[in-house]
Amino acid sequence: MSEKLNIGLDIAGGDFAPGCNLEGASLALAEFGERLHLTLFGPEQQIREGISALGIPDSAYTVVDAPEVIEMGESPIKAFMSKPNSSISLGFKYLKEGKIDGFASAGNTGAMFGGAVVSLGTVVENIRPCLMTYVPKPSGRDGIILDIGASADSKPENLYQFAVLGSTFAEHISHISNPRVGLMNIGEEPEKGNELVKAAYKLMVDTKDFNFIGNVEGHDLFRDKADVFVCNGFTGNIIVKLCESWYHISRKFGFNNEFLERFNFENQGGSPVLGVNGAVVIGHGISNGKAIKNMIGLTMNVVENKLSQRIKEAILRNA
Amino acid sequence: MSEKLNIGLDIAGGDFAPGCNLEGASLALAEFGERLHLTLFGPEQQIREGISALGIPDSAYTVVDAPEVIEMGESPIKAFMSKPNSSISLGFKYLKEGKIDGFASAGNTGAMFGGAVVSLGTVVENIRPCLMTYVPKPSGRDGIILDIGASADSKPENLYQFAVLGSTFAEHISHISNPRVGLMNIGEEPEKGNELVKAAYKLMVDTKDFNFIGNVEGHDLFRDKADVFVCNGFTGNIIVKLCESWYHISRKFGFNNEFLERFNFENQGGSPVLGVNGAVVIGHGISNGKAIKNMIGLTMNVVENKLSQRIKEAILRNA
Repeated sequence: MSEKLNIGLDIAGGDFAPGCNLEGASLALAEFGERLHLTLFGPEQQIREGISALGIPDSAYTVVDAPEVIEMGESPIKAFMSKPNSSISLGFKYLKEGKIDGFASAGNTGAMFGGAVVSLGTVVENIRPCLMTYVPKPSGRDGIILDIGASADSKPENLYQFAVLGSTFAEHISHISNPRVGLMNIGEEPEKGNELVKAAYKLMVDTKDFNFIGNVEGHDLFRDKADVFVCNGFTGNIIVKLCESWYHISRKFGFNNEFLERFNFENQGGSPVLGVNGAVVIGHGISNGKAIKNMIGLTMNVVENKLSQRIKEAILRNA
Repeated sequence: MSEKLNIGLDIAGGDFAPGCNLEGASLALAEFGERLHLTLFGPEQQIREGISALGIPDSAYTVVDAPEVIEMGESPIKAFMSKPNSSISLGFKYLKEGKIDGFASAGNTGAMFGGAVVSLGTVVENIRPCLMTYVPKPSGRDGIILDIGASADSKPENLYQFAVLGSTFAEHISHISNPRVGLMNIGEEPEKGNELVKAAYKLMVDTKDFNFIGNVEGHDLFRDKADVFVCNGFTGNIIVKLCESWYHISRKFGFNNEFLERFNFENQGGSPVLGVNGAVVIGHGISNGKAIKNMIGLTMNVVENKLSQRIKEAILRNA
């Protein structure tokens, strides 16, 4: 029997913690049990009380007492630095020390993102880590879009790096060979767009680092035109929140089918922090048990396929 | 009997010209006939041949022979300048000379927008005209979003002006009193966002020129939170094309209801060019007869409610 993956899970983070987090832990152990050991970060007594009702064998998990809590509204980096005994701070400490293989949380996104960068460092210098999410397409596999808000302002070289990061994710995690990378723009022609994307286009047009297919537009997002959609975090964040709200409105109207259901964040698991030294996944704040389970599954995928290492190799290839 | 509005219609512009344009002219005369006279710009013989089958009385329209055609893919300003006998160039000539009250076309957007700015001029110096579209909300009236792509790069003061333009449109054309203006951003807090919106926020926060309600996010677009959504043309263009494709995908899946149908561009009429001296409406390139009819209706609304004059007054109030 091969050694199990040891995934750290934040039990205190998220709107429905700790109940849904523990439920998600239980679901994950049931689904991935033979490959999974969980290290649970949070107030120890709360975890032990909650877990006893779920019938999880003691050998399946370890508890790390984290009495401090970073609230959802707190200033991220400040909270991260000033609460070393919070679940998020301890999770990164364990990850950095190699005591766990990956860390997942549905808690404060800023604290998770900032904590990942500060604690683990980036895979190379001068890279800007980012966040991504899936873009379901009616035909074919899900695409991905990045950055979705890790940075609000970008330079052309940041967009180029996002393309490398996204392409690496699509290849090694989504298993799409030679993923097509499109640059989000307001027209197809090379001369279209704002100064940022026009300059990014010039950087990308002759690249051998990824499969650049040119500019793509808003209506291409759900077509099978590209696998990776690159944009600045400002636009990406607005796009993703718009899609999410459209999913909710559609469901409220009683619309439902397999395609629409692929927008359901519960099925997606969250966003890895792309570009840091370690496997870190940030889940949605409103994660329920199923979402937490899928967040753990995505973290396992990121660990098993050595995403951080693949990204480092991809960045170094073009250095 | 009050004098009729004389609306200029481009018969040569659009993917389905001249057939759908003439059909739209016929529908408009049937619906607005007592208030409407049409001046039709395009190749005269083509217009006369097409119109004879539609049973439109000769007194309802005037034909202006425009033998040159600006194609959809042509370089806009170059085509506009080099083809003085095109339907678009002649339409603006007539509008500038006061021979028509408003001009509408589903042709080359760039030629229409550039032509409007060059021919008519802006309502004041140092204003950047822009384009808008409707944002249906499940509850309440349609909101509007602007700019949707007239400019790709914006400065904070441009966003401020877009807010004035949008607020004036919402009040005088959509008849929403004291319209709520939201700044599209990636978080609600004043300190959120990229450098552009942070600076725009500071310009807007204490304004008396419009009813600023603060930052809004992607998921607020379809909520009843704001009536006017202000963003840079790059992001706005991507949002609008994304919404349009979602409408088409939803219809393809057989989803349908009153809300979804409000996304149908056919019902909306197009976008006025906001900030120029004159009533100009640009329709969707794929306009059918119904869309053309509604484009004419919107142009009449813009003329009757003196939108250009209202915008000029609003801009001068804050000068």
